[in-house]
Amino acid sequence: MKVIGKKVQRIDGLQKAYGSAKYASDYYFHNMLYASVVYANVPHGILKSIDTSKAYELPGVVYVATYKDVPGSNKFGHIIKDMNFLVPVGDKIRFEGDVIALIAAESKEIAEQAAKLVEFEIEELPPVLTIDDAIKDQVIVNGSSNIGFHRKIRRGDINEAFSNADLVIEMEFETGYQEHAYLEPQGAVAYYTPDNILEIYVSAQCPFYVHEDVANILNIPLNKINVIQTETGGGFGGKEDVPSYIASKPALLSYLTRRPVKLIYTREMDIKETSKRHPSKSYYKVAFKKDGTILGVKSSTYLDMGAYSTLSPIVMYRTTVHSCSTYKVPNVHVDVYGVYTNKVPCGAFRGFGSPQVLFAMESVIDEAAKKLGIDPYEIRLKNTLDIGDETATGHKLTQSVGAKKTLQKVFTMSNYSELKRKVEEFNKNNKYKKRGLGWSHIFYGVSLGSGGQHLDGASAEVLVHPDGTINIMIGNTEMGQGAKTTMAIIASEILGQHVDKITVLQPQTLVIQDSGPTVASRTTFFSGNAVKIATEKIRNNIIEFLTDFYGVGKTEIKFADGKVYIRDKIISFDEVAELCNKHNVKLSEVGWYKSPKLHFDQENGVGEAYITYTFSTQLSLVEVDLLTGKIDLKEAWVCHDIGKVINYDGAVGQVHGGVIQGMGYAIMEEIKQENGKILTDNFNNYIIPSIKDIPEKIHVDFVEDEFSEGPFGAKGLGEPSLMSSPPSIANAVSNAINKRINRIPISMEDIIKIQTGGKSDE
Amino acid sequence: MKVIGKKVQRIDGLQKAYGSAKYASDYYFHNMLYASVVYANVPHGILKSIDTSKAYELPGVVYVATYKDVPGSNKFGHIIKDMNFLVPVGDKIRFEGDVIALIAAESKEIAEQAAKLVEFEIEELPPVLTIDDAIKDQVIVNGSSNIGFHRKIRRGDINEAFSNADLVIEMEFETGYQEHAYLEPQGAVAYYTPDNILEIYVSAQCPFYVHEDVANILNIPLNKINVIQTETGGGFGGKEDVPSYIASKPALLSYLTRRPVKLIYTREMDIKETSKRHPSKSYYKVAFKKDGTILGVKSSTYLDMGAYSTLSPIVMYRTTVHSCSTYKVPNVHVDVYGVYTNKVPCGAFRGFGSPQVLFAMESVIDEAAKKLGIDPYEIRLKNTLDIGDETATGHKLTQSVGAKKTLQKVFTMSNYSELKRKVEEFNKNNKYKKRGLGWSHIFYGVSLGSGGQHLDGASAEVLVHPDGTINIMIGNTEMGQGAKTTMAIIASEILGQHVDKITVLQPQTLVIQDSGPTVASRTTFFSGNAVKIATEKIRNNIIEFLTDFYGVGKTEIKFADGKVYIRDKIISFDEVAELCNKHNVKLSEVGWYKSPKLHFDQENGVGEAYITYTFSTQLSLVEVDLLTGKIDLKEAWVCHDIGKVINYDGAVGQVHGGVIQGMGYAIMEEIKQENGKILTDNFNNYIIPSIKDIPEKIHVDFVEDEFSEGPFGAKGLGEPSLMSSPPSIANAVSNAINKRINRIPISMEDIIKIQTGGKSDE
Repeated sequence: MKVIGKKVQRIDGLQKAYGSAKYASDYYFHNMLYASVVYANVPHGILKSIDTSKAYELPGVVYVATYKDVPGSNKFGHIIKDMNFLVPVGDKIRFEGDVIALIAAESKEIAEQAAKLVEFEIEELPPVLTIDDAIKDQVIVNGSSNIGFHRKIRRGDINEAFSNADLVIEMEFETGYQEHAYLEPQGAVAYYTPDNILEIYVSAQCPFYVHEDVANILNIPLNKINVIQTETGGGFGGKEDVPSYIASKPALLSYLTRRPVKLIYTREMDIKETSKRHPSKSYYKVAFKKDGTILGVKSSTYLDMGAYSTLSPIVMYRTTVHSCSTYKVPNVHVDVYGVYTNKVPCGAFRGFGSPQVLFAMESVIDEAAKKLGIDPYEIRLKNTLDIGDETATGHKLTQSVGAKKTLQKVFTMSNYSELKRKVEEFNKNNKYKKRGLGWSHIFYGVSLGSGGQHLDGASAEVLVHPDGTINIMIGNTEMGQGAKTTMAIIASEILGQHVDKITVLQPQTLVIQDSGPTVASRTTFFSGNAVKIATEKIRNNIIEFLTDFYGVGKTEIKFADGKVYIRDKIISFDEVAELCNKHNVKLSEVGWYKSPKLHFDQENGVGEAYITYTFSTQLSLVEVDLLTGKIDLKEAWVCHDIGKVINYDGAVGQVHGGVIQGMGYAIMEEIKQENGKILTDNFNNYIIPSIKDIPEKIHVDFVEDEFSEGPFGAKGLGEPSLMSSPPSIANAVSNAINKRINRIPISMEDIIKIQTGGKSDE
Repeated sequence: MKVIGKKVQRIDGLQKAYGSAKYASDYYFHNMLYASVVYANVPHGILKSIDTSKAYELPGVVYVATYKDVPGSNKFGHIIKDMNFLVPVGDKIRFEGDVIALIAAESKEIAEQAAKLVEFEIEELPPVLTIDDAIKDQVIVNGSSNIGFHRKIRRGDINEAFSNADLVIEMEFETGYQEHAYLEPQGAVAYYTPDNILEIYVSAQCPFYVHEDVANILNIPLNKINVIQTETGGGFGGKEDVPSYIASKPALLSYLTRRPVKLIYTREMDIKETSKRHPSKSYYKVAFKKDGTILGVKSSTYLDMGAYSTLSPIVMYRTTVHSCSTYKVPNVHVDVYGVYTNKVPCGAFRGFGSPQVLFAMESVIDEAAKKLGIDPYEIRLKNTLDIGDETATGHKLTQSVGAKKTLQKVFTMSNYSELKRKVEEFNKNNKYKKRGLGWSHIFYGVSLGSGGQHLDGASAEVLVHPDGTINIMIGNTEMGQGAKTTMAIIASEILGQHVDKITVLQPQTLVIQDSGPTVASRTTFFSGNAVKIATEKIRNNIIEFLTDFYGVGKTEIKFADGKVYIRDKIISFDEVAELCNKHNVKLSEVGWYKSPKLHFDQENGVGEAYITYTFSTQLSLVEVDLLTGKIDLKEAWVCHDIGKVINYDGAVGQVHGGVIQGMGYAIMEEIKQENGKILTDNFNNYIIPSIKDIPEKIHVDFVEDEFSEGPFGAKGLGEPSLMSSPPSIANAVSNAINKRINRIPISMEDIIKIQTGGKSDE
């Protein structure tokens, strides 16, 4: 490999470092209006009336839109259309962030002032605010029951597993919300081009979702809407489906006024209205033999969906599949329920419903190890998946299973035995500060899996210009994760052109085919394959021409270092591009990749859940201050089997970010609510890790157990990089304080309570 | 054919009719500056100094750019880089429209005021203003001789032809300028996108020329510039190379100020600075047998290039090849010279150097017919090309030669014998009004020909959306000729989707591969083929999926009327698109077409000049008022062999427009100059045909002698539609007044002069 896996300067790095990168809020259009949003601000009720007259009286107000102004469908929902775009009079309010009206005005200030002048009446209903209350079904939030969705795995004989067990661990777990806390809040600008195309500039992961949703809301055909993803300052799942709800607002106002309309969310709006990671409750009962072998897992997990289903049904798919973590489990009885409450809808978040159950299962494993007197490393090594094994869903793995190697690499690179000794020594020498080590060993099903195969295609357009510079457009998005650089590296590997001469354009939905969402750690795999296909076609076109032009054989032509080697000639790629252009060689190609079909029994949750899996191991060293309850992640050792490292610095960066975001989830971040209203609506009270909180050192290594379908063997990394972190840290804290943590986030108060004999959830 | 050749509503018609179509001047960007241009305003001299200080003092002036501010090359020129972008101090001024400086200011008014405040000194030189003066080479305008270029055909033995001749006609001809008179003047807006791509919105035929030229001027790579053609209100060749010169101005100012900059030309600027049809002088000597057979043609033609070469060398290629019109001429001795003068540079204009010589040759044919007592129809029928014949360049025609059929169709549809009788009768009955009939029989080499093969590829991207609507992007442009509708018809024919669900996007040079210029009547042929290739690929992808999905054979699937017929099922195309999208069928493809290689001896002008030829015949009926000199084109009968009619209404529209624009050239339009300065700088003194001047009836018919390489057999029509008109009208006027016209435009004064015994050029 010439470029792949090497250290390459991020192609969009400098402009971000310089601050010249421009985000949705940096877009200005001539004659532009500003939008504001009128929220219900009550968690449950019936909308009785809306009066926009006072708002209209304010000078500078151009339009006050309500449900009556929506020309198409007024409903959102990727699985079930159960969410109003603008709540109609007579219909239900289901959470504080339901939207009553939208304002378009000449300035942001006028728009915000006008929002306060929209009068409306709501007949309030008692809100349902907890999972426990919801499943009683006394007050129905949405649909016909608050238990909206159920998924399961039924495999083997779970009762027999318990009968044969030497040890049965039964535990309950709880996890809290997590806010995505992307640096850039949600925002979009809608603009009619002079040729009457409605352009939507939006901070988003999935422009095709926005495309489809705006088309439905406005009832206009797809080929008259161009969704252009702007430079996106973080997504983490929070910009998967949500940007549709955001973008439809200025889109409607632009449709109504025929002027450009801009809507940039404040952090407060964003935290109030947009999705979070699902809070959960899990009940685990796991059977072990005394040598540590897992015999069976029985679990029930309840995910708090909030007021609307949004993406929950597919989040639950991943929860279900990942419920038994990375282990051979022959007998499986998993239930996952999605529950409606009168709170903010929860949806996609890096890990996508898996961190909740991985925390549970990895805690159970540690608890079993402790009870059986086996080292947590050893018990994982015993149970982990290998070639020929079956996952909990019965997916027989035939290639690219580097799970064991990730465990071994972490074991070695952490110098584990010595480390354990040092921790023991530290703990002996310190009374009020205790250190602990915690393992996690997780896996991650790459891309959308059997339930999402209808979205699992991806397109890439590659165009070589006559000066040798290259444009790539993919249907997936860069949101900070380094996708652009990864695509440029793939094209560079194939054509030999220098990475810095390759530009990856922002996707436009009028130009590139629907490539599914940019989620599920699928971009390197899907778009990478699409770029590879397109670029290889171009290389073939060039080779075909050059063989003819220079009278050489195909194998005599090589591309590397910005040059083309043609038998004994060396010509710069730039010159070859010019030559090809002059000879009408096709230098623009579309690459399309779709994954092989998966076979999965959706009813029993058995079969090939995903095309392949990333395997990861993390070992964390924490220090707990027993007096203040403060937890410090001191150091972490992480290893992922991602098939092949394409973008080395990008991959390491993903791991760093994932470990830290996972740490925030485990020990820092907490959404506080009161009567269904979020109190922690900015970063002064919703505390995320800052530069001062990050560990001294995160040691990163990779296993490259190539997957034959992946581009150059690559799988995916975006999400597993987070997923390994919370269980590893929680286990380390449990290890440090010698008490089992069964709820995250672990607050400072929890540590104090547990020390003083309470349980973490009291 | 289901859609091809049928009457189809123009897909961009309504928005033009409603006035909602937006042109370059309708583009507004936030924080935009306005540009103005400082011209030399003298025809010949040396620039001694520039002083921008007074201009800078004007409040609202943001930048005054001179040659010193150009970061890249300061030179333009598609063949020879002989034209300054901004004239450097010490260098020559070669015509009044040479540019000294550019202003960017907060308003158009300030920009224009500031332009007057730029002070500069020019040491004037004697200007060269006529072809006759130029060829004396006493004062050199450009290069080392005013005769800048020479092209020729040497074939057979011209002396032997004259020795064997029964009749030799020797005549001189002159033709004047023609201004393109597009409704929309030149204009462009430059804008840096938030992600630092320099976007150029420009009224243009050839966005790839602008792309390359702006990149050279600014010294930035091609993949950082996106040229987006705006709705273009007419081009006629005037927006081939010229938009580079226009767009580079706001591009430079935007580069310097990092703000959007708009420059829209006034009509006066446009007429002063931008290209025209070359004035010419021709000397013809043609040998005939007494039965009318042409034995040989000797001709010398001088084209007035003006101050810079621009596209003249390739214009001259077409002049050369078309010098003998549509006839079998065994002995050919053609010379064409390009001559520099201190006047506006001449370049591309519908017909591209052929109308000048077609007027000459068709006049000679008529004169011979008269002298030999043969009907002008008969002499053309005798000499015209047929299958197996060779053109004047010796190109043996093997297919698609409908020349004779076009003559016969015009003969029939005009009821020629009866028409002649009626004209004689009219003339007998009228003393001061005389009617005349005039034939022309011309051919047109489709696309760029042997000299332009490096540009003869074209790309098309076709994308079917999940709702069945379709986007097409081609690398050629719509400028009013109907290209968008033609492309939609081709896609509709193949996929069966309704034409009104197909949108053709404005081309973007970052998205679509360089497809050469939109000139030379090549769009239907090249882009049409590219669209056909891309759409057929998509159809194949769909068929492959449907055969598998429904278990039917490939031949059981048909696409028509917005539906897909699958054995006994009928499903709307929209539903099929949705189904395909859900099953990850590739619905986006790039089609690339390049023409077969031509073999041509550039030195002797012998060989395959073009891939194929359109053949055309026109018969015109004019009425001349001998007292006022006014000429009326009463009626015209026109027939073109274009291989296949794709867009019927579009084709008829082209012919209507071409006949009228050709009429303007022949009898109305005249650029008047004084000391090298154009006096007729608006439409109050440069008179073009208005609705009152058009003929009562233009009868249009087509021959469809399919060309195997063309999409569905199509060739090209854009230019021949004009080219048939001037010689036909001039011949009709000569016929009416019974005196040979040897100079166009034929002014009213000319008619009077000729009547009173003078010659038209006295």
